[in-house]
Amino acid sequence: MLPKAVRELTRELTRLPGVGPKTAERLALHFMRQPRSALARLSEALATLHDSVQTCTICYNLAETTVCGICASTTRDRSIVCVVEDALDVEALEKTQAYQGLYHVLGGVLSPIEGVGPEQLTLNEFLLRAARPEIQEIIIALDHTMESDATTRYIMQRLAGHVVQVTRLAHGLPTGGDLEFADTRTLAAALSGRRVL
Amino acid sequence: MLPKAVRELTRELTRLPGVGPKTAERLALHFMRQPRSALARLSEALATLHDSVQTCTICYNLAETTVCGICASTTRDRSIVCVVEDALDVEALEKTQAYQGLYHVLGGVLSPIEGVGPEQLTLNEFLLRAARPEIQEIIIALDHTMESDATTRYIMQRLAGHVVQVTRLAHGLPTGGDLEFADTRTLAAALSGRRVL
Repeated sequence: MLPKAVRELTRELTRLPGVGPKTAERLALHFMRQPRSALARLSEALATLHDSVQTCTICYNLAETTVCGICASTTRDRSIVCVVEDALDVEALEKTQAYQGLYHVLGGVLSPIEGVGPEQLTLNEFLLRAARPEIQEIIIALDHTMESDATTRYIMQRLAGHVVQVTRLAHGLPTGGDLEFADTRTLAAALSGRRVL
Repeated sequence: MLPKAVRELTRELTRLPGVGPKTAERLALHFMRQPRSALARLSEALATLHDSVQTCTICYNLAETTVCGICASTTRDRSIVCVVEDALDVEALEKTQAYQGLYHVLGGVLSPIEGVGPEQLTLNEFLLRAARPEIQEIIIALDHTMESDATTRYIMQRLAGHVVQVTRLAHGLPTGGDLEFADTRTLAAALSGRRVL
């Protein structure tokens, strides 16, 4: 019933993560109500995305140049590398202003079911970096999921012969979080990671 | 921290209904991982949307020609007009295959708070249509919200002098719905609309 152009747009929109057929139709109708200029802006932003954004050749973070601002900075601590899943994790950690080291963006985590092996990620590139003499600490900052845990184990195994120290972000109750509303895995992590006062 | 092009795309995406800053960032990162061809397809679909889609000059439904397929059809019952909010409502009603009349797409409902008066909708155009002698029944197929009820009242007032019959879609328990899970308004509507067996 809907015009072909609307159906085509709807089909493209359903490819987006978290967008089902109903949401896609709503979005398409929303776009129909927008002026041409608004659609042109979004269309242009999508079309030119890959032209001006690249991945840093050192840490694989999103960058506007071949080396990202963090890797190029002279004030960062080059002896620590924090391993994260994607660029949004880098952004979240940078916002804390509590970290002055470098990053390594894996581009995902190991997931045999989804066909994601070390080659689909930047894991081998990371292991080469981790072997460099100036690196003294590796911080694993991955989520607390089965795939992330497998990725962490893989990294630990491959770094077994190295003298580098490997740490992991603390898992436990979120600040301001109510104990009774914490899920069982979080609560279990908080228990096993308890500290002496 | 994120490259300018990613931030610009994120900003455009937050304008979409139901998309907050976090979802927009996730979407932007998803787009970054897509091949150029996929982005080009979506970009093209957005850019050309207005070129090939117009609104029917009779019922204001989305159409590929100046008159939509339903209004142009010779097999539809031209004595009944069903008033709906948008094109997705037309699609939903057409899927039932239970309606053979015509439609009128209002393009929204009256909402003084959001500055939506009769002029922002196709209400006056509808009233002109409703006054035509061949129209014998108007079916109001709007949602059951405060704004929709106000819109229905407006239509009723303006049609007061006409001989046309005005009906409204039945409200009550959804088919297969469990009484105990129905919200109070639905249950109240089901009670007040009860029928003799």
